[in-house]
Amino acid sequence: MAYTLAQIAARLGGRVLGDAEIEIAQVATLEQAGSDEISFLANSKYRSKLSDTRAGAVILSDADVDATALPRIVSSNPYAYFAKVSALLNPLPKAVPGVHPHAVVGQGALLDPTASIAAMAVIGRGVVIGAQSVIGEGCFIGDNVRIGAGVRLYPRVVVYQDCVLGDNLIAHSGAVIGADGFGFAMEEGRWIKIPQIGRVVIGNDVEIGANTTIDRGALDDTVIEDGVKLDNQIQIAHNVKIGAHTAIAGCVGIAGSTTIGKRCQIGGSAGILGHLEIADDVMIASFTLIGKSIHESGSYAAIFPFGKTEDWRKNAVHLRHLDEMNRRIKRLEQSKQESLKDNN
Amino acid sequence: MAYTLAQIAARLGGRVLGDAEIEIAQVATLEQAGSDEISFLANSKYRSKLSDTRAGAVILSDADVDATALPRIVSSNPYAYFAKVSALLNPLPKAVPGVHPHAVVGQGALLDPTASIAAMAVIGRGVVIGAQSVIGEGCFIGDNVRIGAGVRLYPRVVVYQDCVLGDNLIAHSGAVIGADGFGFAMEEGRWIKIPQIGRVVIGNDVEIGANTTIDRGALDDTVIEDGVKLDNQIQIAHNVKIGAHTAIAGCVGIAGSTTIGKRCQIGGSAGILGHLEIADDVMIASFTLIGKSIHESGSYAAIFPFGKTEDWRKNAVHLRHLDEMNRRIKRLEQSKQESLKDNN
Amino acid sequence: MAYTLAQIAARLGGRVLGDAEIEIAQVATLEQAGSDEISFLANSKYRSKLSDTRAGAVILSDADVDATALPRIVSSNPYAYFAKVSALLNPLPKAVPGVHPHAVVGQGALLDPTASIAAMAVIGRGVVIGAQSVIGEGCFIGDNVRIGAGVRLYPRVVVYQDCVLGDNLIAHSGAVIGADGFGFAMEEGRWIKIPQIGRVVIGNDVEIGANTTIDRGALDDTVIEDGVKLDNQIQIAHNVKIGAHTAIAGCVGIAGSTTIGKRCQIGGSAGILGHLEIADDVMIASFTLIGKSIHESGSYAAIFPFGKTEDWRKNAVHLRHLDEMNRRIKRLEQSKQESLKDNN
Repeated sequence: MAYTLAQIAARLGGRVLGDAEIEIAQVATLEQAGSDEISFLANSKYRSKLSDTRAGAVILSDADVDATALPRIVSSNPYAYFAKVSALLNPLPKAVPGVHPHAVVGQGALLDPTASIAAMAVIGRGVVIGAQSVIGEGCFIGDNVRIGAGVRLYPRVVVYQDCVLGDNLIAHSGAVIGADGFGFAMEEGRWIKIPQIGRVVIGNDVEIGANTTIDRGALDDTVIEDGVKLDNQIQIAHNVKIGAHTAIAGCVGIAGSTTIGKRCQIGGSAGILGHLEIADDVMIASFTLIGKSIHESGSYAAIFPFGKTEDWRKNAVHLRHLDEMNRRIKRLEQSKQESLKDNN
Repeated sequence: MAYTLAQIAARLGGRVLGDAEIEIAQVATLEQAGSDEISFLANSKYRSKLSDTRAGAVILSDADVDATALPRIVSSNPYAYFAKVSALLNPLPKAVPGVHPHAVVGQGALLDPTASIAAMAVIGRGVVIGAQSVIGEGCFIGDNVRIGAGVRLYPRVVVYQDCVLGDNLIAHSGAVIGADGFGFAMEEGRWIKIPQIGRVVIGNDVEIGANTTIDRGALDDTVIEDGVKLDNQIQIAHNVKIGAHTAIAGCVGIAGSTTIGKRCQIGGSAGILGHLEIADDVMIASFTLIGKSIHESGSYAAIFPFGKTEDWRKNAVHLRHLDEMNRRIKRLEQSKQESLKDNN
Repeated sequence: MAYTLAQIAARLGGRVLGDAEIEIAQVATLEQAGSDEISFLANSKYRSKLSDTRAGAVILSDADVDATALPRIVSSNPYAYFAKVSALLNPLPKAVPGVHPHAVVGQGALLDPTASIAAMAVIGRGVVIGAQSVIGEGCFIGDNVRIGAGVRLYPRVVVYQDCVLGDNLIAHSGAVIGADGFGFAMEEGRWIKIPQIGRVVIGNDVEIGANTTIDRGALDDTVIEDGVKLDNQIQIAHNVKIGAHTAIAGCVGIAGSTTIGKRCQIGGSAGILGHLEIADDVMIASFTLIGKSIHESGSYAAIFPFGKTEDWRKNAVHLRHLDEMNRRIKRLEQSKQESLKDNN
């Protein structure tokens, strides 16, 4: 499949400069692109790379429009434009509609005729699956789950009973949606399980990474709003709510009943304790534990800076004596005060 | 399914006050409960919520018994009582006994006739499965695994060969029990694999979260004692031993050959290095790395406090100079000493 | 299966002292070994254990050769030797060659006749699988994946389309190879997905732990070189490159486009940010976040030392005031300077 620049711009907008009839078959980086490939320049600071590229065409912004003579598409957001060109050139393989003979479908399931159920998948009773949705190999969909249109579950995704998945959800292999939250009452030295009777409810246009887990609510639901993007191996506990268009990097853990605002960005391996509120537009650094609610948008961090092990050891030992260190400083200050007084 | 307060108390104990014939169909929070639902008050500090609730009945302790006129059950442990009421009202769906036609069972497997093997499950040779146990869709049970009674493996749990699972185990989807521990010997720049020939042995009444991994022992076994509760995405390395009734939150990693005591509580994303001993009744905060054995019960922590990124950066830079800071304080103290001497 | 010491040394090298005809059926620790088992002493500091062991034979180094009268094999690397003896005594169960009747194989797949495809596995179109390779129960292999010889995929491994796996790969259950990297462009408050069109390319003799995830490249490939060993629940983002013979412990997260050198060792739950370069022979401590490139081999750390919670709290509060503390010290130093001047 290949498109001319003119065809691309006709579909996706943008202004073509140079030879609009050049055919583009693939996207690539400026370093790797060949003559039938298109690349992009999202940041003027890499402008020098344009002189060396062998790309057939480039996507760039108005500010860089004169930095190359290559055929080019001018866009106000070259990176987003590039994403769309790539999606045009790399459509997902079409899945065969219908139920594979090696799949099992429960009673009362309502599957859109354009939906595809792959081999070894098991669909529970009363499940509803929308148009063009693809349930991958070996997926398990629990009883009464509702799945929207245009959803793609990669192989071996598990969705427990009663959960609700919006349109255009992408969930990668090993994701587990709706397992029991971690809830127990202590009685005489033993943990008594609290049945987890809430659901997971997921909005539209959400992506869920490989081996990410989202627990069902204890009593009320766990909620993931529209446009949320979750990377791999994230753990979302029961009754968490994640606001629309928030993006979370890999290995993050979010404890129970915490509410996260809209358009937040959370770095890899960060953590958020339970029963907190995080405002909209909050950025949290990688490896940072958030232990209190954040009421103000902005950027937050708590990373211990690394060093050579011998330097780290020499310095870190004092972390156990910071309070004493502070008192020693205070004593010095007081004695200075007194000696000043004495001198007066 | 619904029960009157009188019927509930007849089964679970506790003292009924008010209309004992009111019918209860479900549990809910004080905020969300309706007239056929029961809620609970576990902490007197939330007593004010009782005045606004529309719950049909409430579970509370003796201390709060007069705080509402609603029909109520008095219990010394309202939260545990609530857990039991919820279990009564929300029984797990009954699984169909027997082997699904789309499951595969190996030679010599001994399956209790009341056990249920779901579609796409594969049961190895010589496996033993006890009464009422449910092996979910797509589970894999390796050769010679022994599984007790009343066990529930949710879809896509994997148990490697020879492992032993006690009664009433609950394991959620994606859990992997008995994969090889991470053991290698270095020889001339290459890693030589140490075969992992121990097992995983799990006691009774254990719960294992989604995508949690428990490695088999290298030579001896990895052991999880009775009543242990493990949340999602926990990694337990080879030859770890976890004492009875210990509870571990999500994303914790425990390195090889460490022994953890009974009734410990470990917060989310914490870590414990290998070959350590952790005493009984130890509490470890979230995000805390334990690098030495703990011989005394109590609460331990090591969390770097978060802040606005600009504040964090301003402060964190000094972590690389704490030793120097300490020496500067010492010099000031010495010079004070000397000037005191001079003054005498 | 049992071998005499003489037979073992004939296969694996080493020098036998004492009764070379004693039969050895299994390996064990010095503490647990019985009379038909062989143990090892890798470190002279545990030499005293030799006097109590009931092992039938021991593997040890020249330095310890006189520390016991037991039958023994002398090796320059007792631990690696032990690994090889264990592999000899504990061969993996032979898999049945061919395709299980409950497996599904796509058109054009080229399976070596000695390869084994287990029940519930699904093999995509155009897949190539080499000699003696075993695809476990419920694995999914995407279209056009190439798998070398002697590979063992444990049950429920997923490999997305087009990926390349070298010879002798071991991948444990729940591993996901080739899921989409986490790449989005922001446009008017929404995330636009960047199609991930690179692959994962894995060399020979690699081991991948349970529930570990390795994302496919965005444009170019994600690369894991020969001999790399990855523990459980590791997350490797798109376009990461890991050098040969590097070993990474559990729960580590590596962000996109980072290159890690050869023979590195990375401790559990560590993290490495994106777009960094880590030199060869770097050791990174557990729980350490690497936020800048490391150009020099050596050992690096950033662990906050744990303590009793009340001590930690007392000390940690000052972390938010280190900059102020530093200024207070500076003021004291200046005032000392001035008072010295005054005194002159």
